[in-house]
Parts: sequence; C-alpha cells; structure tokens
Amino acid sequence: MSERIGFIGLGIMGRGMAANLLKAGFELTVWNRTATRMQDLVAQGAHAGADPADVAARSDIIITCVSDTPDVKTVILDEQGVIHGARPGALVIDCSTISPQATREIADALRAKGVFMLDAPVSGGSEGAAKGTLSIMVGGAGDQFERALPVFQAMGKTITHVGGHGAGQTVKLVNQVLVVGNCIAMCEALLFAQAGGVDLQKTYDAISQGAAGSWMFTNRAPQIIQRDWRPGFTIDLQQKDLRLVLEAADELGAPVPVTSLIFQFYRTLQAQGLGSEGNHALIKALENLAGFEIKAIR
Amino acid sequence: MSERIGFIGLGIMGRGMAANLLKAGFELTVWNRTATRMQDLVAQGAHAGADPADVAARSDIIITCVSDTPDVKTVILDEQGVIHGARPGALVIDCSTISPQATREIADALRAKGVFMLDAPVSGGSEGAAKGTLSIMVGGAGDQFERALPVFQAMGKTITHVGGHGAGQTVKLVNQVLVVGNCIAMCEALLFAQAGGVDLQKTYDAISQGAAGSWMFTNRAPQIIQRDWRPGFTIDLQQKDLRLVLEAADELGAPVPVTSLIFQFYRTLQAQGLGSEGNHALIKALENLAGFEIKAIR
Repeated sequence: MSERIGFIGLGIMGRGMAANLLKAGFELTVWNRTATRMQDLVAQGAHAGADPADVAARSDIIITCVSDTPDVKTVILDEQGVIHGARPGALVIDCSTISPQATREIADALRAKGVFMLDAPVSGGSEGAAKGTLSIMVGGAGDQFERALPVFQAMGKTITHVGGHGAGQTVKLVNQVLVVGNCIAMCEALLFAQAGGVDLQKTYDAISQGAAGSWMFTNRAPQIIQRDWRPGFTIDLQQKDLRLVLEAADELGAPVPVTSLIFQFYRTLQAQGLGSEGNHALIKALENLAGFEIKAIR
Repeated sequence: MSERIGFIGLGIMGRGMAANLLKAGFELTVWNRTATRMQDLVAQGAHAGADPADVAARSDIIITCVSDTPDVKTVILDEQGVIHGARPGALVIDCSTISPQATREIADALRAKGVFMLDAPVSGGSEGAAKGTLSIMVGGAGDQFERALPVFQAMGKTITHVGGHGAGQTVKLVNQVLVVGNCIAMCEALLFAQAGGVDLQKTYDAISQGAAGSWMFTNRAPQIIQRDWRPGFTIDLQQKDLRLVLEAADELGAPVPVTSLIFQFYRTLQAQGLGSEGNHALIKALENLAGFEIKAIR
C-alpha cells in the first residue's frame, strides 16, 4: 500500500505538485494558510487538514512547499506545526528553497522525535510544477531518498540525490547563481547589441545555438525583445533566493562578486515596484544606467 | 565556374577553414606571415602566394583570418596588402574578430577601389573550423552575402546575414559578452558549491539540463571539475575580444559592468602567465580571491 501524503503550502508551485500527486493515485491531505486555496484540490479528492500538525497526524510523508526559511520553521516547528503531529518513522520533505544551515537545524529537531527529513527544493517554475517535469535536488539519507522516490517521480523528471541534509538546498542555490549570472550576461549582451545598431532578432538567430547559448538566452531573450515581462519566476522570489546565496556565501567564505552585483540591481527594480515582473526584467536596471531602452519588436 | 579563393592567415582557425575550402573543390591561393604554415595546404593542392597583394591578384574572393584589428589593416591596407592586388569587383571577406568601427573604415577604403567587403567573424573554435561547423555572423551588402554563400557553406553551419558593414563584428562581440558572462556564472556557482561541501559531479548532473544550463556549463564545468585547463579558446584571445567589447561599449555608451569585471579578472590571470590556458580557467581568479580551490575529480 502506498504511503499517505500530506501537502502543506498550495502556492504557485505547490498547487501543481499536489495535483500531480492526486493524479498519481496517492491519498492526499492538504493544508494552506489561506484556506480557500484548498478548495480545488478537495474537489479533486484531497482531504483538508485543520493545521500542519493535523496533516502530519494523517500522513506518512509530509511535504512542505512554502516561501522562505521562517515559513518552513513555522509550519514544521511552531505550536501547530508538523513536528507535533508526525509519528516516529514519518518523513518530512521540504520542497521550499531555504537556508541550507536552517535545513540542518530543522532536520536535527525532527530527528529528536524520530521523524526523518529530506530537503528537496525544485526548479522548473510553475509550468514544470503543473506538468510534473520539475528538477528536484534532494539532500538527506539514501534510504529515505529511495522511500520518497515514487513521490518525487509523480512531481518531477530530473531527480538527483546530491548529499546529506542541506545539500539539496546548496545545489538549488548553485542553480540560482547560474540562472542570474546567465541572465545578466543576456542583459548586457542585448543592450550592447541594441547600442551597436544590430537587429536583435537576427542576433538571436545567429548566436543562440552556439557557445554563447543558455536556457536563459533561448527562453528569455525573445521575451525581452518583445518587452514581455510576464514572470516565469518573479524578481521578488529571485531576490529572496539571492539573499540565501549571499548569506550562505558569507558564512562559507565563497566570493560571489557578480551574484552580489545582480542582487543590488534587483534591489533597484524592487524599489521601482517591479518585484512581480519576471527575473529577465533585470535588463531594466541596465537600461536605467544606460539611459536608453532596447526597442520592442512586435 | 566557381570563384577562385585567396586565404590569408593560416592560424589555429584559418588552417581548418582553408582545408575545408580545398575539400569543397575551390581553387585556393594561400598566404601566411610564417611561411612554413603554408606547406600542409600546398601539399593538399593550394597555391602559395608571395604576399597578400599577390594572393588578391590571383583571386576573386579573398578571405582574411588573422588576430586583431592592426593585423587586418596590415594585410589589407599596407604596402603589399590585398588592396593593391585586388581587381574591381573582387570581394574581401574578413573572418577575423576585430573592431566594428575599423571594419567600416576598411570597407570604405576598399569601396574606393571598387572592391567589395563582408565582415564574417566566426564562432566555434578550432574544432568547429576543422569540422566545418562554424557559426558565421556576416555584415555587408545582401548581394555579396549571396555571392559568398557557397564559400561560407564550405566552412560553417549556422550562417546568418545580420546587417551592414560591421554588423557581423558587433554580433560576434555580443556573442563574446554572453560567453564570458556565462563563464563567470559557472565559476561562481562551482566555487560556491565547493565551499558548500556538495559533490560537484552530482551538482552538475542535477542542474546542467535545466534553467541553469548553458553551452559553457555543459562543456566546460566537467573540465573545471577535472582541473583540465586545455583551451577551446585561450584567455589571451578572449581578453583581446573583451578589449574590443569594452572599446565599442565605451564608444556606444552601453554599460557592461559584468564584462568589465571579467576583463579585470582575466588581466590578473595573464599577469600570472596563464594566458594560453582555456577561458574557463577564469575560475582561478575567483580561487585566488577565495584562498581555496575546487578539488579535482579524476
């Protein structure tokens, strides 16, 4: 008999992930701070939990998918948190992106109650969550990874066990360093192209498949060329992840000069009220410096 | 009858490109400053020219593939340069990577003699030159692009006419901004991963195919993980191209803060005598800042 799943946090990511667990046939109990967000999933056959502890009491594996380190601490460790409902032998899987160090502390607290933990942050955006094609980077014990694999397979495609507690979070932050670095490269390149008077679409066609290529350039340069700022991933969420990178890099003594600069650029865009635009709107920080914009091609 | 080709500059790139023209059946006259480099191609059926003017006198289309702006000016405009041998109606194709502004000036000088010009810098490294799979970014008149297409097709795969004189060079520089930006992102990410204690190979497996992916990460991260500094493209050549970017960006008023920082990092590596290593050895500049290295996996 497959394990009963609890799912806490039905935001832009969690909603799609929980729906895919239902589709895969898992018995599912959900909870969300804003209760109305549970209705869709309940209509599809999920149970509604009263609070995180109640979800944990009804589940063998409890997934948390919330925004930031304090949110994870709240739903797991606070008064009505998972830790007060979970039985010994239960497994908590945190799919949020949070501090690797805090992850190790939460794992310690759960271990003291006989509860296992995996950190399993995801990459792939709301589209990947909905389609079940997420990349999932997992930290924790190997036997718990094996135990959770059917659950991961219902939600993602590239599922990698990368090390012990916190390793999944560290790899997710490595991922974010690459994402924003590739993003600033794209922004500088497109603005330089605009200044140099070349056709941006032809430029894209000439170089996107070669040594200059990246997922970011392939997918987001066309959006920039059309001045389409709809988010695959918002500036606010990107900035939250970069704060985690900078904190961890400071603790670890790792120099991240470019990531640090990008953090400052995103800061200026948040100050302009652009936090809900896509992370590729980073180019607006360079445009502000330049005093000119790239022209929209429509 | 196909046009007779002259080829000037048989360096690491030009050698492979000229050989592919011979293979495609073009009649070929070659010249190189260091004459011994002509021997292989002469053995394969090429004629040896006495100097660039002599090559031009024997050819309908003259290709130049040398290092930098002054070298192109020398072989085209100096006393024994192409301009003194080329007949009206001839076409000069410059496959070097040089200043877009200088390119427009050279095109003007040639036009005054009735000689056409295309700028056609290439991307894809010595491997792409040897295999005939280069990306070629072409600036100049559309009819001359059409005329040259069979020649380009013998040397490359992705051939794009991007605009007027200098546009090929501008797009090549855009390409280089992306290459080095994706490179510094990779270097920061790997050093952060090392500091965070995660397995670099597992990290690579978990994220290289997703939103963090790039040609650079896919192809050069494995080299870095093995501390293999053999060049696909050397630091010295990369630095030469970045100097062209910074000069052009300054003229055009385009802010390139990250490219500018990378230029400074490469500078420190050249000062250490590492100019002939691959451009991915950029990570050594961060390692020097950090005071630790990523561990080799062999």
